[in-house]
Amino acid sequence: MSPDKTTPYDQLMARWQQMHHFAHLQSIVSWDQATMMPPQSNEARAQAMAELSSHLHALITADDVSAWLKQADALPLSTEQAANLREMKRQWTADHVLPPALVRDKQLATARCEHAWRSQRAQNDWLGHVPFLKEVVNLTRQEARHLANIQGVTAYEAMLDRYEPGLRIADLDQTLGALQSWLPQLIRTSVAQQASQAVVLPQGPFPVEQQKQLCLQIMEALGFNFSTGRLDVSAHPFCGGVPEDVRITTRFNTDEFLTSLYGTIHETGHALYEQNLPRDWLGQPVAQARSMAIHESQSLFFEIQLGAHSKFTEWLSPQLTAAFGEQAAFAPDNLRRLLTRVKPGLIRVDADEVTYPAHILIRYGIEKSLIEGEIEVEDIPGLWNEGMHQWLGLDTQGNFKDGPMQDIHWSLGAFGYFPCYTLGAMYAAQWFACMQDQNVAHASDVQRGDFKAIKTWLNSNIWSQASFWPTHELVRRASGQALNPSYYQKHLENRYLL
Amino acid sequence: MSPDKTTPYDQLMARWQQMHHFAHLQSIVSWDQATMMPPQSNEARAQAMAELSSHLHALITADDVSAWLKQADALPLSTEQAANLREMKRQWTADHVLPPALVRDKQLATARCEHAWRSQRAQNDWLGHVPFLKEVVNLTRQEARHLANIQGVTAYEAMLDRYEPGLRIADLDQTLGALQSWLPQLIRTSVAQQASQAVVLPQGPFPVEQQKQLCLQIMEALGFNFSTGRLDVSAHPFCGGVPEDVRITTRFNTDEFLTSLYGTIHETGHALYEQNLPRDWLGQPVAQARSMAIHESQSLFFEIQLGAHSKFTEWLSPQLTAAFGEQAAFAPDNLRRLLTRVKPGLIRVDADEVTYPAHILIRYGIEKSLIEGEIEVEDIPGLWNEGMHQWLGLDTQGNFKDGPMQDIHWSLGAFGYFPCYTLGAMYAAQWFACMQDQNVAHASDVQRGDFKAIKTWLNSNIWSQASFWPTHELVRRASGQALNPSYYQKHLENRYLL
Repeated sequence: MSPDKTTPYDQLMARWQQMHHFAHLQSIVSWDQATMMPPQSNEARAQAMAELSSHLHALITADDVSAWLKQADALPLSTEQAANLREMKRQWTADHVLPPALVRDKQLATARCEHAWRSQRAQNDWLGHVPFLKEVVNLTRQEARHLANIQGVTAYEAMLDRYEPGLRIADLDQTLGALQSWLPQLIRTSVAQQASQAVVLPQGPFPVEQQKQLCLQIMEALGFNFSTGRLDVSAHPFCGGVPEDVRITTRFNTDEFLTSLYGTIHETGHALYEQNLPRDWLGQPVAQARSMAIHESQSLFFEIQLGAHSKFTEWLSPQLTAAFGEQAAFAPDNLRRLLTRVKPGLIRVDADEVTYPAHILIRYGIEKSLIEGEIEVEDIPGLWNEGMHQWLGLDTQGNFKDGPMQDIHWSLGAFGYFPCYTLGAMYAAQWFACMQDQNVAHASDVQRGDFKAIKTWLNSNIWSQASFWPTHELVRRASGQALNPSYYQKHLENRYLL
Repeated sequence: MSPDKTTPYDQLMARWQQMHHFAHLQSIVSWDQATMMPPQSNEARAQAMAELSSHLHALITADDVSAWLKQADALPLSTEQAANLREMKRQWTADHVLPPALVRDKQLATARCEHAWRSQRAQNDWLGHVPFLKEVVNLTRQEARHLANIQGVTAYEAMLDRYEPGLRIADLDQTLGALQSWLPQLIRTSVAQQASQAVVLPQGPFPVEQQKQLCLQIMEALGFNFSTGRLDVSAHPFCGGVPEDVRITTRFNTDEFLTSLYGTIHETGHALYEQNLPRDWLGQPVAQARSMAIHESQSLFFEIQLGAHSKFTEWLSPQLTAAFGEQAAFAPDNLRRLLTRVKPGLIRVDADEVTYPAHILIRYGIEKSLIEGEIEVEDIPGLWNEGMHQWLGLDTQGNFKDGPMQDIHWSLGAFGYFPCYTLGAMYAAQWFACMQDQNVAHASDVQRGDFKAIKTWLNSNIWSQASFWPTHELVRRASGQALNPSYYQKHLENRYLL
């Protein structure tokens, strides 16, 4: 191509393609770090990854990018090209405003805080953790201020924007605040109703090899593509890698198999989204997954909407018997009861879907005030304990490790992520309602393990749409309306109050 | 540090440190590609790795490096700093002469050729492989011509220099050519002598899990550090990763365990070298392993000199019984006979140490002519068959998969590597002779699995010396003389003719 034919838009695309390649390497080595890396190799790895982060930051913040973005505005662009430009501007705005020294300092502070967290959590050492977390909060506030100024939003909104572009506090206060009016009653009623319900617990041990085979078998049935992805083990399950090579993880415990299986189903939801992003557009900004709330809507769709559905347990039941031998606990009805057991507890990742939003609301209130500068790190345990009392009637005083130290998000500086879990659960309910409306999700299909129609719907409406549209437009095109939390409320009431 | 205090040498060291970090990422993703990557993820990976190669190439060939190298010549440098400068100049000279497009094209061509090789070898599809290999040869010839011009050597010598700096065709023709005078007779005599020797074959099956445990146990005993390294499985065993995180691989076959075990011992030799490179210098050019011939001298020292030693088999024998149960084949004498069985065969990696050099000589002759432009890819099978007839009396006509397609080296563009195996075997014999001279390698230590004295010798003379000296100087300092192939000849005659 002769130089005069290369437009600023082409230059941008070439730069993003480069970044796509480096991000590929970053994803694979991050996966390796969590799954394969020997224990004492971390220091050299951290340095290599910091070098790569700096390089990625330099690629997007270089002066030429800023010039190309301005010039590209004047070009005649197709709808898809305009969408690419919109996404590139969004990413550039969030990155170029940050001083390189702040990026580096935050990276180092979060690496140190996360490393300290590993031992301090185990030792319930909140006081030891405070200085590390204060440093992360301090740097995150600086980061948020830079972003807030340029975006014309508040500090916490700037953080939310990282995970769910366009999300504002007013929306969240309304969407999550509405839970206050019906969720406490739902928790109480479910617990009371289930008190008299008999549930048979599965009897272990469940050998790791059988659990793994079962997970692989269910992944296969759900449509995970093993020729471009794999399942491994890590301390904290995640979906990593790249769309062309999706790496999901789970963890096994021989006493119990539902956690590894449903963790796998959850990550398979994430994986299906990644594996079905539009192939022909990979490497372009429009081909990236839309947002973390939409991502969580995929994992929670498979784990909760589908996975705890009575027809799914009918399909699953004989497979459990084949894997582990006959058990009364594997009867479809008993499985459904096990999967929908409501039990207020201290740990978010172990929570049932009814009490789960309470964990999010507690974190949302705290992280919002923290980033907006209304409270300090020292105030967290008190507010945490208050929230747990109010929502779940549990005391966490002095139990920091099962309180504010249980999650790694804040130590990693990922403030603004938590709301995506509950938004994702709400979207998942909206998708399922939509499919039922459109007569897509046939009970008899699910019962036979035929998920074709469901996946076709998700593929046309979510996966293939990637980032072609902003979230609100994606949601409107998929379901004919904006996020409507009443589907979520109806889903929970149907499942827990009937 | 104020800018006026930063010397050109400091600038060079900072740039090499950056390259060290990116090379770390390159090693880990390469390992992943060979061990973990799903089959259809190769195209995206190849593109990401090509981007990284281009970046590494850009970092070393940037104009500032050339200026710093010139300026650094005028600085007062310590011996170690001068050695760093020597190595940086060597790497820079080899890299800056290559056009970036050629680097990228070769990376893509080798990734595609290697990927094609995986299925084409299995299908004996030489004709299908030819176009892929021709592309790699074509690009390698271009690369070699660029390097040859600047170094004042021939094209093939330029490729040799990649793996063994300073090695010339005249040296090789002399060192390897000398084998012609005694090796054919040694092969014939060994085969004839062993014809009447009784050997008991181990009886399988040997379960993979037990084989793996045995490999891990022997690695541990040899001193492999598992807190900064691991063992995995790949189609073609190798030692990869970085000194801070060494990844070795083997492959298991339930019919047979000696291949996986001795492959593991071989890679452990490489790994010990990497894990014991001078820690305080890592990231600096002087801390890199000296060359591939010296690297192979470490792997072959452990596999051949030590591993097939009668005292080693005495130590190994009860461990085999513990792993697989009692077998007559596990008697120390029988093990030694199994490990020193001379049997002309088609496959290099399965060859005994006596016929092994024949495989190298065949490849050396072909790759030298190929890179010098005297023959074409289409000529390979004929020359291969001729060489196999002449050296081992075997026919390979039409059997490409056990002929020129058996190795991955050429498909990867690694022309000039093969001679390092036999040079390594010669060096290994020289080290062992030296240790015996210095009374270091006590038979009674080996018999008890005490390898401390041997490793101390290797550590002082090879591992810790890294690239502080050119190869000839390293060899002279370690053994008091230059490479002397008579130790190799004596070793083989002692082991096979007495």
